[in-house]
Amino acid sequence: MTNQRVLPATGREQQVLDRIERARRRRPKLREERITMAHGAGGKATHTLIEAIFLDAFRNPLLEPLEDAARLPVQGGTGERATVALTTDSFVVSPLFFPGGNIGDLAVNGTVNDLAVAGATPMYLSAGFILEEGFPVADLTRIAGSMRDAAAAAGVAVVTGDTKVVEKGKADGCYINTAGVGALAAGVNLGVAQARPGDAILVSGPIGDHGVTIMLARGELDIEADVESDTAPLAELVAGLLGAVPGVRALRDATRGGVATILNEIAKAADVGVLVTEDAIPVRDEVRGAAELLGIDPLYVACEGRLVAVVDGGQAAQALAALRAHPLGAQAAIIGEVTAEPLGLVTIKTTFGGTRIVDLLVGDPLPRIC
Amino acid sequence: MTNQRVLPATGREQQVLDRIERARRRRPKLREERITMAHGAGGKATHTLIEAIFLDAFRNPLLEPLEDAARLPVQGGTGERATVALTTDSFVVSPLFFPGGNIGDLAVNGTVNDLAVAGATPMYLSAGFILEEGFPVADLTRIAGSMRDAAAAAGVAVVTGDTKVVEKGKADGCYINTAGVGALAAGVNLGVAQARPGDAILVSGPIGDHGVTIMLARGELDIEADVESDTAPLAELVAGLLGAVPGVRALRDATRGGVATILNEIAKAADVGVLVTEDAIPVRDEVRGAAELLGIDPLYVACEGRLVAVVDGGQAAQALAALRAHPLGAQAAIIGEVTAEPLGLVTIKTTFGGTRIVDLLVGDPLPRIC
Repeated sequence: MTNQRVLPATGREQQVLDRIERARRRRPKLREERITMAHGAGGKATHTLIEAIFLDAFRNPLLEPLEDAARLPVQGGTGERATVALTTDSFVVSPLFFPGGNIGDLAVNGTVNDLAVAGATPMYLSAGFILEEGFPVADLTRIAGSMRDAAAAAGVAVVTGDTKVVEKGKADGCYINTAGVGALAAGVNLGVAQARPGDAILVSGPIGDHGVTIMLARGELDIEADVESDTAPLAELVAGLLGAVPGVRALRDATRGGVATILNEIAKAADVGVLVTEDAIPVRDEVRGAAELLGIDPLYVACEGRLVAVVDGGQAAQALAALRAHPLGAQAAIIGEVTAEPLGLVTIKTTFGGTRIVDLLVGDPLPRIC
Repeated sequence: MTNQRVLPATGREQQVLDRIERARRRRPKLREERITMAHGAGGKATHTLIEAIFLDAFRNPLLEPLEDAARLPVQGGTGERATVALTTDSFVVSPLFFPGGNIGDLAVNGTVNDLAVAGATPMYLSAGFILEEGFPVADLTRIAGSMRDAAAAAGVAVVTGDTKVVEKGKADGCYINTAGVGALAAGVNLGVAQARPGDAILVSGPIGDHGVTIMLARGELDIEADVESDTAPLAELVAGLLGAVPGVRALRDATRGGVATILNEIAKAADVGVLVTEDAIPVRDEVRGAAELLGIDPLYVACEGRLVAVVDGGQAAQALAALRAHPLGAQAAIIGEVTAEPLGLVTIKTTFGGTRIVDLLVGDPLPRIC
């Protein structure tokens, strides 16, 4: 047993540890005394919360890159070793059922996608349920069935679980946490910090479908639109891309905070600029219209089956072809590029010929989207 | 990427698959139309829910043994391979802070212990937070600090996480899910199904401290007692036991449903009888007194730092010595034995000389204990 320990820091990890210490000194302070909805929105407040509270408490070189999944060496007692990816997400989407899916397939696809964009092959999921007293068993059965189907479609197995029940009024029907384990091949090392000037940025399809679907399903807007969630497992799409394009630097699924948040994470993690062209970004008309009524830019609206890819600029056409070869990437597009400046900023060339800065989302215009 | 898949069923897994099919036919139906608190209590209703809904949806040979952690083969692209253990638990304890700990160290220790009793070396944790709007940041900071300390004490790293926020009234301050990954040495294969007549049953210390502490912390009983949660990481204790005693068949940490539930799981999984002696079971006087006022048998009260061990009968003294050699096992005791009959039943020799059946807990006398 005793030789199965967390391995000592490698040279690369030590570099990360050094970066941690430097980052600690410039880390934002949390000004609020109480948690607000914005802390869960995936934008600026969420980043501040994570950096001020969680990174400070848990700091270690495996957590610090803040990628969608952590890369973990595992060493068995008999010389066996492998590298696994681990990720987790809790799902509190409201309503639980919506056009195109429900909290169950969302919980499976979300975690499968976090593994896939880390370059890992999704293999195993855990499922933790927090149920509200009085929740209909028929709804739970339907949710579990959707999880089963989504797991089968993604080629993963739900291998362990947990169920808790809280009193009526202490939850909102059903919350689900999934954690996922994937296998990482040696040499795969994707990360937004690896973006460099000249790289191309692609999205795998129209953005914002999921977020707009959820907002419309709540019935708060008195409009109907023919739109449904894009929730889908991205592992096959990613495998095709990685197989065809050696120069993939980073992949991210564009969930809370949407594509704009991913672009900001690229700019900040790699100390580069990001320049995108509004007209190049695929958005369905229904989504654009609903987003306008909601007063939000589709760039900030969550997808649950779309990824952002950063690839070597010379391989952009190759990457586009690889994405389009898969049904989930049929409407993929090259939307912009990585630039040397302005450092840490995302700029968009608007349809009207101007440019503006695309910052991290402030506040939470789209609560409980996943 | 394509060769990193879930491995095909081995002969042993095929046997499990066959057992699944047989078990499916005699699986209980869920009679209730709505979730009740009892479905989260770890007793009879929880077992029925899991078997009727989740096993039915997710059935696969890795999940079906229903041990505290799943054993998972992982194969990398370059011939690397290892076996990892995966487990998950959500924590909804109320109150969040109590004598001896809080939801943070509970969430770390609970998952560390599920890995440890599977014979795995705990290595990595994920942490998923569901926060209620308005939750004090100071409380979250304190909880994260306790998680950090507990992780350090257990030798694990929190490597990935997620934060969601729900509206005021839609949660109860803070819920935490942790999932854990551990390394499994080849040949380690513990499980309650392996108990056989003649085996000895031990507990690692006084039972019920955690559950009674939580009930008293709620202030619903107007008594004070000098008792605190036993929350603690059991990995070292387990490593000592496994190193000293080759004939360990199964280990379980006695959380929801207490020792009585574990004994029933042994009896049912191995198709054996279990006979324990009431006088041999260590219970603190304060816990016994409070449990009496609560109207509950301490055998059903949760611990968060105690394990039940099933070992070869001929190695019982050796196992007792190994447990007592560790501070967390100083008050370990041999409490009973595995018998050939009555099949599937747990019997207790009472202090007064009689015997009675110890069944699974019905209802939920101790809600939200973890």
